[in-house]
Amino acid sequence: MDELYKLSHDVPSHKDYIDTTDFEQDEILDIIKTAVVVRDYIKSGGTLDTMYHKNLAMLFEQKSTRTRVSFEVAMTQLGGHALNLAPGAIQLGAHETIEDTAQVLGRMCDMIMSRVDRHASIEALAKYAKDTPVINGMSDYNHPTQEMGDIITILDNLPPERKWNDVKVVFVGDCTQVCASLMMITTKLGMNFVHYGPDHKLLDEKFREIGRKNVEKYGGSVEFTSNRDCLKGADFVYTDIWYGLYDKETPKEVYMQDFYPTYQVNDDLMAATENPNCKFMHCLPANRNEEVTDSVMDGPNSICFDQAENRLTAQRGLVLYFGKKAQETLDYIKQQKEGNN
Amino acid sequence: MDELYKLSHDVPSHKDYIDTTDFEQDEILDIIKTAVVVRDYIKSGGTLDTMYHKNLAMLFEQKSTRTRVSFEVAMTQLGGHALNLAPGAIQLGAHETIEDTAQVLGRMCDMIMSRVDRHASIEALAKYAKDTPVINGMSDYNHPTQEMGDIITILDNLPPERKWNDVKVVFVGDCTQVCASLMMITTKLGMNFVHYGPDHKLLDEKFREIGRKNVEKYGGSVEFTSNRDCLKGADFVYTDIWYGLYDKETPKEVYMQDFYPTYQVNDDLMAATENPNCKFMHCLPANRNEEVTDSVMDGPNSICFDQAENRLTAQRGLVLYFGKKAQETLDYIKQQKEGNN
Amino acid sequence: MDELYKLSHDVPSHKDYIDTTDFEQDEILDIIKTAVVVRDYIKSGGTLDTMYHKNLAMLFEQKSTRTRVSFEVAMTQLGGHALNLAPGAIQLGAHETIEDTAQVLGRMCDMIMSRVDRHASIEALAKYAKDTPVINGMSDYNHPTQEMGDIITILDNLPPERKWNDVKVVFVGDCTQVCASLMMITTKLGMNFVHYGPDHKLLDEKFREIGRKNVEKYGGSVEFTSNRDCLKGADFVYTDIWYGLYDKETPKEVYMQDFYPTYQVNDDLMAATENPNCKFMHCLPANRNEEVTDSVMDGPNSICFDQAENRLTAQRGLVLYFGKKAQETLDYIKQQKEGNN
Repeated sequence: MDELYKLSHDVPSHKDYIDTTDFEQDEILDIIKTAVVVRDYIKSGGTLDTMYHKNLAMLFEQKSTRTRVSFEVAMTQLGGHALNLAPGAIQLGAHETIEDTAQVLGRMCDMIMSRVDRHASIEALAKYAKDTPVINGMSDYNHPTQEMGDIITILDNLPPERKWNDVKVVFVGDCTQVCASLMMITTKLGMNFVHYGPDHKLLDEKFREIGRKNVEKYGGSVEFTSNRDCLKGADFVYTDIWYGLYDKETPKEVYMQDFYPTYQVNDDLMAATENPNCKFMHCLPANRNEEVTDSVMDGPNSICFDQAENRLTAQRGLVLYFGKKAQETLDYIKQQKEGNN
Repeated sequence: MDELYKLSHDVPSHKDYIDTTDFEQDEILDIIKTAVVVRDYIKSGGTLDTMYHKNLAMLFEQKSTRTRVSFEVAMTQLGGHALNLAPGAIQLGAHETIEDTAQVLGRMCDMIMSRVDRHASIEALAKYAKDTPVINGMSDYNHPTQEMGDIITILDNLPPERKWNDVKVVFVGDCTQVCASLMMITTKLGMNFVHYGPDHKLLDEKFREIGRKNVEKYGGSVEFTSNRDCLKGADFVYTDIWYGLYDKETPKEVYMQDFYPTYQVNDDLMAATENPNCKFMHCLPANRNEEVTDSVMDGPNSICFDQAENRLTAQRGLVLYFGKKAQETLDYIKQQKEGNN
Repeated sequence: MDELYKLSHDVPSHKDYIDTTDFEQDEILDIIKTAVVVRDYIKSGGTLDTMYHKNLAMLFEQKSTRTRVSFEVAMTQLGGHALNLAPGAIQLGAHETIEDTAQVLGRMCDMIMSRVDRHASIEALAKYAKDTPVINGMSDYNHPTQEMGDIITILDNLPPERKWNDVKVVFVGDCTQVCASLMMITTKLGMNFVHYGPDHKLLDEKFREIGRKNVEKYGGSVEFTSNRDCLKGADFVYTDIWYGLYDKETPKEVYMQDFYPTYQVNDDLMAATENPNCKFMHCLPANRNEEVTDSVMDGPNSICFDQAENRLTAQRGLVLYFGKKAQETLDYIKQQKEGNN
């Protein structure tokens, strides 16, 4: 990254951030660059007002801690404001159609971020919000803002002397949105990705197709397997909760039967990587001592709280990029830094 | 409006915005002027900090999308902040009397906006908040912030070469607060207003009295009728939802029997205006294909989403006016514009 | 207070504000000084941006009006922002352990304020939020932000020509957190404190021990009694609600039997102070005509709404002090005042 303050694209190729598959690798790298430069600037005490008086509507069909707090803090730190439209405050598709709500919010706000039950809802929001950018804060298909925080965390923790995409990332457990998203972003960047889980819980063909196309285009590799040997050489082991986030879902017992104890990330599983420096990641919240043991989660190789902090890093990058303020912000930071020298 | 930046009143004649009937026509025009000048200035990229660090408490006894979002965005755009006190967060008249809550919020905040179940509550809030201005965000009697957005939308869409108050506005359907409010604001401005609905669902005598007094003072006309001929010559047809916003209410079937299909705003009803340019308005949310068909709501003459956007236009005007910052803001904008020439 | 703009401590002795017992008297006086100087400056039209773009997470396990509104307004007035994490939005100890939530919020936000069910929760938040300051917005043990607002109100209303801590404060009624907190702060400042209530409802030994130690160190006196003579000479009579704030609690009837009518603050009880200038205080909300009559609460000696307003005064002082910005803010205000002369 010698051209640290220069983006490859001036404006986003798509108005909305719904799915990273819509974007080329260089655009993803632009967002990462923006996010990381802004993080370092703010950590060093710098202030920004790029989103001065701008309003982000946050529309939640499900509860959220990390997504909500990180976007709200990001907007404040950039001089703007985020409106928290909590589950039930506005019922998408209840008193009003999604399409009508989208038109109204799009008229009043500068940007919309939404966590939806069904992926079709985020697509409808994006379409009917017209010129207003829409960010997918998680659907039943993917979790692209998580992707951005995760990939920044991986890049922050590259093994020494390794090329930035020459790493092996193993997701252990259920084919959640987070698993799918991790596969999409790591293969987009040409990394080596493995989904390790029971055969009937591995990512399905529509996702595998995306992975294979990414590998073809960007290099790296992708694998879906229940063979424990796949852990060998992992630089990052990542897991997600097995159950418990939604009201109507398969009972806990079924999940435990599928995953416990084989797919619990414990000291044994980490040892199976044969890499004493293998990092542990988790999107949180965690059911401690189910999908991951305290010993791993609180151990020296756990980077899951850095990862949580990078949700904030990512959201700043995303609102700047899709608010068409990324290059302007980098220019400003460059100027500030030069002024200080 | 040759004196575009000069208001007829320096300060509001009433501390609170509870009912437009409290105000003379010239004061209503002052608020409109403030709202429209600020809208145009912000749309052209201007920024304001007139409400710098000021706090608006938004106190909701019922859910709200448009009112809440528009006030929150308005305060942010003016450099201030709006606190969302959602239904249940503070229970007016439950753990604490309305009067005590009003005193406390009045001490801590610069302005209060509230959506209340009963009109007496907004009056009590206004009284006990003492010097702090209170804005009525809808009661069971009226909806005066909606009035302001609606009247701005009507003025934005005047038929060509027509005097600003020489228009005919027909409200179709139930005698809701929105219907009553539309009658009050259009007759206040000397327009021609008709409420078209089943005889037992027309606005009652206390409202008709207000309408007649307005006509006497400001010209125009007012009519309450079930005779479909009233639609002829309408410049604006306006409707509101028939049912479904409240928990305890008359069942849907009763409403459908009263209004459907006669009072549905569909292509036939619009044709009955004999005005191909007649605009369609709706305060939203809509039950599509009940009180209005998709063909009308999504048709070329529908201005209901512009109308939603003007909720924001109106709220900026209202907080500036009742915050006693309207003239100061217009002076500032005038100065900025002159500086640019 | 001749050195009005100079604090005795540059930085807080403890990162968190959990319990005033952790702090020496001079540090409490520093916080009061900061709060009062900032209040006067803002009341005179001054503006501050000391908490520019800083984020305070407000985490509520129980509903709140005064605490929530006062912190949110305080942050806005200081250029920052407060995030309202309402009960249910994040369930401490439900989907995620308190410890994990604390780590995440501590990474994303600059400060945390929380109202918790159990005191152990606020201690866990403080520990796991690491470097991020945590403020106790009420637990089942104490209510230290209320303490700060109360003590400022007492100091605002000192009897003429009386030394600042030569006052008698009588709390009437149940041994609530507010009662315990009032005892802790008044004795910390060397005042004379009495808890007047039925013997089985007086503060217990663990609190009495704190009171006695304070008296030993700072002078003043402390008494726990059911003897009505204790009211004589009171400068301040304070009461709190008897019941009704929580879902699961002793039924109203039991409370009424314990306290009514003996411990109702009415004209008779106020007369028993034999001090016609004795002030009435209440943390609010009140059940009018149960623990206090309208005649007292709305009477000329009632300062309970000034007290509510001083919640805001206190919160500004607290966020500045624990945000390590108190001295800087006082220096700035001093400079502004000198510039104006």
